[in-house]
Amino acid sequence: MPLIDRDPLLLTPGPLTTSLRTKQAMLHDWGSWDAAFNRMTGQLCRQLLDIVHGAPSHVCVPLQGSGTFAVEAALGTLVPRSGKVLVPDNGAYCARILHILQVLDRAVVHLPFAEGQAMDAAAIGAALQADPAITHVALVHCETGTGIVNPLQEIAAVVAAQGRALIVDAMSSFGALPIDVRATPFEALIAASGKCLEGVPGMGFVLARREALQASAGQCHSLALDLHAQWQYMEKTTQWRFTPPTHVVAALVEALQQYQAEGGQPARGARYAANRERLVQGLQALGLRPLLDAALQSPIIVTFHAPAHPQWSFPAFYEGVRQRGFILYPGKLTQVETFRVGCIGAITPEDVDQVVHAIGATLRQLGLLPGACAA
Amino acid sequence: MPLIDRDPLLLTPGPLTTSLRTKQAMLHDWGSWDAAFNRMTGQLCRQLLDIVHGAPSHVCVPLQGSGTFAVEAALGTLVPRSGKVLVPDNGAYCARILHILQVLDRAVVHLPFAEGQAMDAAAIGAALQADPAITHVALVHCETGTGIVNPLQEIAAVVAAQGRALIVDAMSSFGALPIDVRATPFEALIAASGKCLEGVPGMGFVLARREALQASAGQCHSLALDLHAQWQYMEKTTQWRFTPPTHVVAALVEALQQYQAEGGQPARGARYAANRERLVQGLQALGLRPLLDAALQSPIIVTFHAPAHPQWSFPAFYEGVRQRGFILYPGKLTQVETFRVGCIGAITPEDVDQVVHAIGATLRQLGLLPGACAA
Repeated sequence: MPLIDRDPLLLTPGPLTTSLRTKQAMLHDWGSWDAAFNRMTGQLCRQLLDIVHGAPSHVCVPLQGSGTFAVEAALGTLVPRSGKVLVPDNGAYCARILHILQVLDRAVVHLPFAEGQAMDAAAIGAALQADPAITHVALVHCETGTGIVNPLQEIAAVVAAQGRALIVDAMSSFGALPIDVRATPFEALIAASGKCLEGVPGMGFVLARREALQASAGQCHSLALDLHAQWQYMEKTTQWRFTPPTHVVAALVEALQQYQAEGGQPARGARYAANRERLVQGLQALGLRPLLDAALQSPIIVTFHAPAHPQWSFPAFYEGVRQRGFILYPGKLTQVETFRVGCIGAITPEDVDQVVHAIGATLRQLGLLPGACAA
Repeated sequence: MPLIDRDPLLLTPGPLTTSLRTKQAMLHDWGSWDAAFNRMTGQLCRQLLDIVHGAPSHVCVPLQGSGTFAVEAALGTLVPRSGKVLVPDNGAYCARILHILQVLDRAVVHLPFAEGQAMDAAAIGAALQADPAITHVALVHCETGTGIVNPLQEIAAVVAAQGRALIVDAMSSFGALPIDVRATPFEALIAASGKCLEGVPGMGFVLARREALQASAGQCHSLALDLHAQWQYMEKTTQWRFTPPTHVVAALVEALQQYQAEGGQPARGARYAANRERLVQGLQALGLRPLLDAALQSPIIVTFHAPAHPQWSFPAFYEGVRQRGFILYPGKLTQVETFRVGCIGAITPEDVDQVVHAIGATLRQLGLLPGACAA
């Protein structure tokens, strides 16, 4: 059966489905030197900062590339070469931070937690107390590998009480989960265009404490990823230091207007939570079991156990659901066979009902329903 | 007079004016794990390689971010920490390479030329002969700061004869000027989406000699910019290592179809050369003088002396031309007051006639015509 030329809905953690209005914002070309474009950048940075009530303590520095580029930029710029970073670890994105720090040759303390377990703020506090040489804590807020949300606010309080600096990878939570820098002190927080703000992928941004960024001149291991230089150049010229992804910027500006119109973070978070409820209930009714306890599931992405059946094949399952118009995501765990379904993007609970229906139909087609799914 | 809400034409060296068809390719969302998207990436890489007849000696590694990210990635990945790089320098983008190498702490030999002068292959050969420790030459093909084209083929021959490796920043020439790796040996050549291929900005790519890239494992100073890791991951999975700029990729795929339909490099280069002829003749008729001798002018961008008149103000000139529907580019020289006009993008000689007319009208409005322009 040939596929109809029509876009599937993306049930993925980014890139995700964006609104047509957001994509249509890219039907223009901008000059990177032109004031009209640079006003867009300035407005964008102010809006991103406002989402966490970041002015005047913090500044927003956008960066070309994927979110990982911005994570590396934040670590490379803000952690001095003599710094030491505590990395609590419960998943793939924590492991990526460890990898970056290893490449950057920064001293690291690795604090592992089980993959299906939220990080424990008290254990982080104890690790800090045990090692006064630790200067920074690098934390993943929502670990997309499993879909777990780590207790950012508690951890921020512990880190602040110990007088250390917190760097938060909020890639997949920013805009959907509440973060207020006045109550949740951080040195830097990193996110990207193509996640819960529902822009298209191609740029990240770092909300950095002004004084910390000011003190970081000359520290970065890279020219392109030097956030201090990027910030200084923008302050001086209003322009990006190197060619900006103009269309991605324009799409994000447009996406932010829709974000505000929807009701900002509370409304966005509520819609995603409703998506998650519908998804978990629907797939549980088919006999599929989520990896995490309900209390730990983020409204960002949910990991499900694969049916424990010899006929299970993720590629066949993926293809069946895709032919029904939806794109799912593979698991990212080493120990257990899983698949993931995203709750974010320009999708509604009604869309999720359709996804559940498509998953059920696919499982039946593959001979995995009824009965084979209960793990 | 309020501006009409209509896109100006960009007479800039990228971002530039793209076709509506190219922009419309971004009216879709893609999953970064999905085979449909990854087939696009694979096809894109093969086409980019074919432009320089790069298979099978070379491979194409795309990279998120602006062109400078790809330049840093190529230098950081391919030049070993013990390497030494000769940097012939006749402009701003040569200086940027020097800056990158300084940040990366690689040994450098700086070979300066005058800004308005093409590099001399014999001088490069002499510098290589004088210093056997030099392992690489990092060359800017078309120096957008002035618009000069450096003699790539002669230099490549000299570098090869001396047994050193050549890394070419072909950012603003790739696709418009002829480059054939079988006749012009290079270790790596770097370009980006938003230049003469007439895509939108947001990704670069490196065409690297397979064996050199293979030998570079673990050499890079950065995780995000590690071309070897990016290549290996793509080879293994067909996917980008980190979130790709999906819409930028789709636009470039579409732009490449139009590139082929136009007639590839010979046709693209001929259109740009015709744009340059019309531009230079038109502005000379107004009394404006190009910075470079005709033989050195690239069909990419042309630098003109600003009118030597006390009333000259680039911002006023820019604004006047912009109100007439065209965006120009400021000069990038330290010594002489100039402005620049790009010849690239989805524009024709007829468009350039209109630009010339708009420039003339603006100069008259500013009291700089008749008579004041002859420098």
